Amino acid sequence: MERVEKALEAALMEAGGANCPPLLASALRYAVFPGGHRIRPQIVLAVAMACGDPNPHHTDAAASAIEFMHCASLVHDDLPAFDDAPIRRGKPTIHVEYGEPLAVLTGDALIVLAYETIAKAFASDPRQLAAMISIVSRAVGAPGGIIAGQAWESESTISLVDYQRAKTGALFAGATLAGAAAAGRDPEPWRALGDYIGEAYQVADDLRDLLCDAEELGKPAHQDERRARPNAAAQLGIGGAKARLTELADAAAASIPECPGAEQLRVVIRAQTRQLFPSQLEQYAA
Amino acid sequence: MERVEKALEAALMEAGGANCPPLLASALRYAVFPGGHRIRPQIVLAVAMACGDPNPHHTDAAASAIEFMHCASLVHDDLPAFDDAPIRRGKPTIHVEYGEPLAVLTGDALIVLAYETIAKAFASDPRQLAAMISIVSRAVGAPGGIIAGQAWESESTISLVDYQRAKTGALFAGATLAGAAAAGRDPEPWRALGDYIGEAYQVADDLRDLLCDAEELGKPAHQDERRARPNAAAQLGIGGAKARLTELADAAAASIPECPGAEQLRVVIRAQTRQLFPSQLEQYAA
Repeated sequence: MERVEKALEAALMEAGGANCPPLLASALRYAVFPGGHRIRPQIVLAVAMACGDPNPHHTDAAASAIEFMHCASLVHDDLPAFDDAPIRRGKPTIHVEYGEPLAVLTGDALIVLAYETIAKAFASDPRQLAAMISIVSRAVGAPGGIIAGQAWESESTISLVDYQRAKTGALFAGATLAGAAAAGRDPEPWRALGDYIGEAYQVADDLRDLLCDAEELGKPAHQDERRARPNAAAQLGIGGAKARLTELADAAAASIPECPGAEQLRVVIRAQTRQLFPSQLEQYAA
Repeated sequence: MERVEKALEAALMEAGGANCPPLLASALRYAVFPGGHRIRPQIVLAVAMACGDPNPHHTDAAASAIEFMHCASLVHDDLPAFDDAPIRRGKPTIHVEYGEPLAVLTGDALIVLAYETIAKAFASDPRQLAAMISIVSRAVGAPGGIIAGQAWESESTISLVDYQRAKTGALFAGATLAGAAAAGRDPEPWRALGDYIGEAYQVADDLRDLLCDAEELGKPAHQDERRARPNAAAQLGIGGAKARLTELADAAAASIPECPGAEQLRVVIRAQTRQLFPSQLEQYAA
């Protein structure tokens, strides 16, 4: 956890440094620190470490880039034109604290910073750089990344699977692929792990939206119903969603490709997936 | 000119392809075509060609990336939270045509696409990739790129030089640097040319804002005064601004580093700078 924070801190230093408009510099920090669970960069690290983590510098950059992309998406998704969310991670959202212009620009600058961080880390060994940029871009951009996922909300017809795969799954798949690529491994075999974790995360998020109150979430609750958005827990029922979550945790653990630290990674993935379970779920049968 | 359009078309193809939410795919095209003067990608091409253009594939990607970044900045700058502009390039702005959520997402996706386009073109020859990404990132992100330039507008004190260097100059410098790097040249000696063209463009833009009407501009006029933004033409007077424009064109032409096509590039730069002159300027003495 400390490793992720240090990597983010180092990457943010220059962007917010001398000559940066002071409010933008401040907003960039506000968007990144303190973080949430940092689950995506933790996945990058966990996968790279399972593969021996031969290039920790690459791994740190990949983890930071994935987290910057995630933070950028939160900042933009919270804007009045989208969720109009007043709080995030237990504090006022960026557009509430800094105004809407700086919220748009902070998201933009974080996307740029993600790429800049990767390019800097890979400058002395560029063979993997194009692959890493492609992984991150596919996870984030059109046609199937998190930006496209968000854009599905503007369509009149929308499939739950396509929507959630792009909006949530793509960046989790990006995290496992980036972790493997940072360790010099062929990334593609790691996609299934990211897909399963992404779907588990989405089901858990839907459950929490249904079951938790705003104080527990650090953000508004019951948003899916209010916005008539597809919600897996509402579709499957709470018991069905809980069963699906267990299934996905098993599938994720089983999908881990052969690598030196496969066994330990299985333990980490199971523990992380359990952490996703809302505590209120204990009272519901699977 | 045709070369720029073809390169943009090819780069946009995949992003807006199968599985892309249809409105996002449509908005991406709408943001890029038909273009304005394409002055930034033309500069990338002109510089690369002056250097012999040994890697046209790299040059096309660099030119497309710079133009995608420019289009992204226009889409976001036109948002209600910024300029609230109803028209751009003579047609309704993206948020008017597609709604604000898709306008934010289109800008985001264009930033990602810029990097993806570069990574794809340089994948088979990655030595220059890190340098190219760094050039583009510095031109666009914090602390000194066009995003930072826009962010200066949220500060209570603002220097005309810092503001315009970041908001306009940075992407012009990025264009000359990218053109040189795409041709395998050391990019740094090309910075002065980009700086001069950027400043000339800004002075001309300030003059047009002062002198033209909305129909000629394809966007609202007299915005600087309305927004109390620094305007070089207002500060120097129209005659002073015209003299400054001539000075900058001379300085730009004189700054061109030694290269096979230096003489021809000087002619192009002078012609382009003349094109920047608003036609109303003829009646004012320099």
